[in-house]
Amino acid sequence: MHPEVVAKAERARQAAKVMAGIPTGAKNEVLQRIAAALNERSEEIIKANAGDLEAYRSRPGYSKALYDRLLLNRERIAAAAKGLLEIAALEDPVGEVVGMRLRPNGLQIGQVRVPIGVVGIIYEARPNVTVDAAGLTLKSGNAVILRGGSEAIRSNLCLVGIIQEQLRAAGLPEAAVQLIEDTDREAARALMRLNGLVDLLIPRGGPALIKTVIENATVPVIQTGAGNCHLYVDEGADLEMAAAITLNAKTQRPGVCNAIETLLVHEAVADQFLPPVMEKLLEAGVELRGCPRAASYNHAVKPATEEDWSTEYLDLILAVKVVADMDEAIDHINRYGTMHSEAIVTRDYDRARSFLNRVDAAAVYVNASTRFTDGYEFGLGAEMGISTQKLHVRGPMGLEALTSLKYIIFGSGQIRR
Amino acid sequence: MHPEVVAKAERARQAAKVMAGIPTGAKNEVLQRIAAALNERSEEIIKANAGDLEAYRSRPGYSKALYDRLLLNRERIAAAAKGLLEIAALEDPVGEVVGMRLRPNGLQIGQVRVPIGVVGIIYEARPNVTVDAAGLTLKSGNAVILRGGSEAIRSNLCLVGIIQEQLRAAGLPEAAVQLIEDTDREAARALMRLNGLVDLLIPRGGPALIKTVIENATVPVIQTGAGNCHLYVDEGADLEMAAAITLNAKTQRPGVCNAIETLLVHEAVADQFLPPVMEKLLEAGVELRGCPRAASYNHAVKPATEEDWSTEYLDLILAVKVVADMDEAIDHINRYGTMHSEAIVTRDYDRARSFLNRVDAAAVYVNASTRFTDGYEFGLGAEMGISTQKLHVRGPMGLEALTSLKYIIFGSGQIRR
Repeated sequence: MHPEVVAKAERARQAAKVMAGIPTGAKNEVLQRIAAALNERSEEIIKANAGDLEAYRSRPGYSKALYDRLLLNRERIAAAAKGLLEIAALEDPVGEVVGMRLRPNGLQIGQVRVPIGVVGIIYEARPNVTVDAAGLTLKSGNAVILRGGSEAIRSNLCLVGIIQEQLRAAGLPEAAVQLIEDTDREAARALMRLNGLVDLLIPRGGPALIKTVIENATVPVIQTGAGNCHLYVDEGADLEMAAAITLNAKTQRPGVCNAIETLLVHEAVADQFLPPVMEKLLEAGVELRGCPRAASYNHAVKPATEEDWSTEYLDLILAVKVVADMDEAIDHINRYGTMHSEAIVTRDYDRARSFLNRVDAAAVYVNASTRFTDGYEFGLGAEMGISTQKLHVRGPMGLEALTSLKYIIFGSGQIRR
Repeated sequence: MHPEVVAKAERARQAAKVMAGIPTGAKNEVLQRIAAALNERSEEIIKANAGDLEAYRSRPGYSKALYDRLLLNRERIAAAAKGLLEIAALEDPVGEVVGMRLRPNGLQIGQVRVPIGVVGIIYEARPNVTVDAAGLTLKSGNAVILRGGSEAIRSNLCLVGIIQEQLRAAGLPEAAVQLIEDTDREAARALMRLNGLVDLLIPRGGPALIKTVIENATVPVIQTGAGNCHLYVDEGADLEMAAAITLNAKTQRPGVCNAIETLLVHEAVADQFLPPVMEKLLEAGVELRGCPRAASYNHAVKPATEEDWSTEYLDLILAVKVVADMDEAIDHINRYGTMHSEAIVTRDYDRARSFLNRVDAAAVYVNASTRFTDGYEFGLGAEMGISTQKLHVRGPMGLEALTSLKYIIFGSGQIRR
């Protein structure tokens, strides 16, 4: 086993026991202290980050997008600090009692919401995840083990140093937030296999990272992220609404998981709907790839391949398919989708209900943009990623997703006959 | 990949889509039909079972306990059929809408309870699990892939044949309940790695089976079963109550996971409590293994080793330890326990609350026997096993544990700004 990872997990296990009993007020106070410290010490953070940026510039396979995600500046640090204050303002999920009831034998049985325990987060080169994840796990009474990408190691060490200093100053265990310093693959693999020490592992990043975690982890994992999302425009839909939602869901922020990747259009409205909406999409810089009928509307549309239907572009590219009816649209979604966010634009009551029932995804919309699948937009206040699996939690994961329910039973000497 | 397993999983995926939309009445009717068919055709089932029993008798490593679990007779078949009627009488969890609320932008967001989809069950030589698991997954709108032990293959084929016949007769997809006929290890391993086709895998059986599934599965798993449970007798406890609970929790049915394996006694009451309770336990045929102080009370107590504290005996054996205070008891439980069922006997208000808060287990009891951790006793009506993990569900898993919540969003053209 990997000594650093095991030692940190053991310390996390001890810290988790303490954190589970810390009152809400004390947790909020340390979040506020950390927020203040991040702002006060932003120069120091920016300096550490500059080291990461410089090292990254000389790496083979340099990507401007990754460089941008890696970058920290005063505004981004202030935004991360503000995020912590928002988490402090959220209601504490821990301690809620649900479903307490009296059994015929006089036993009183209910469930109390408790922290998960030790949560591992494996992520890539986004140092803001370090602050977010620490804030959410602290507020929900857990201990967290962070394992960020090697590109951000200097930034992460600086951020976690500041967080631990504030935990110590508040009299809380600094092992409540720890960073794995070894950015080698073996360290991540060790973290994936610490059954008994790690209660939950959340991978946050691209499909390759998520696949590696799912294939190698023996601890419970929540699958997040991949969003091959669709919008289906039904026969008889309000085409103006459909156009606005198409543009919004594709172009408002194309690089995120809740943006759409494929537009499905009922053949009865394709002639009327597609030519103008394609013009608008092309004007907005969107590359279009279509089925033969979709491609027939505009010479700029490239032919779509089988691969296009399965691809999460995360970019200004949209696949377009004309379908015979809603059944074909639903079949297409349930076949190629990643169970993330799916939408229909319709005026028909029965088809709206049927789409909601039959599409198998974390979030299914009628007459709204898929871009709303987000912890803040759903009213959870914050988000630890978006689950695309069915166990434990689907969709945006807020504080409650970092808790579990344990049974508590009050008796007066009952024994089983 | 394993052709039988993949083909059945693909059929299960299709069947799951159909089953998710079947109304409660139709699901209850097929459960009633299956129950009737099991009773009517019990001769046929007993004959198939006799083949299993005969083959098992000549196996190396024959165990009387396993032979008993394998055995089906008219009474056991009737009990399994009655179990199906009880499941039919339970409320259908599918379709419940929770937490529907209006967001400031006019979006109405809620969650609807839906089936998990395709559930895999890997179990050992208990053919009654075949009927139970089929009943629970059918009622909750899922499709199930059963993979029972080789010892029970003839019984399982006969039972699944009868179930599928009734599914067909009711116009439901017979692939809603399928049995993997290949009882080789490779078939089970294939089932563990069918991400995208299997939504949830539940191992039911001994520690070796559960360990294999956890280490090899890439699909989501719910860890069940192992119960190294404790009873702690506090200073000032009602010692009569404590003795009754000790006897009940150890001897009423020692072979099940919610029986206690270790008794922890506060040193202030050890002199008074242990001698008489040890006498009663010995009279009931319980072998005692104790710490030096516990062993000093009765010459029949063998010295306990470190291994004893971690062992789930599932037998008439009890480890006994005298502790200095509740803190030591809780530390012992959180260190050696399997997060299943833990109990305190106390008269002290603060310590009762503290024990409930600090013990990390699926079910924590004050003044009652751990033997109540059970789907029927908790009022769930039925049980698919007892989860000892923290994700998705802890403790007895009823119908709701076989469902998931998906977000449904009603809009009127909302786009994200």
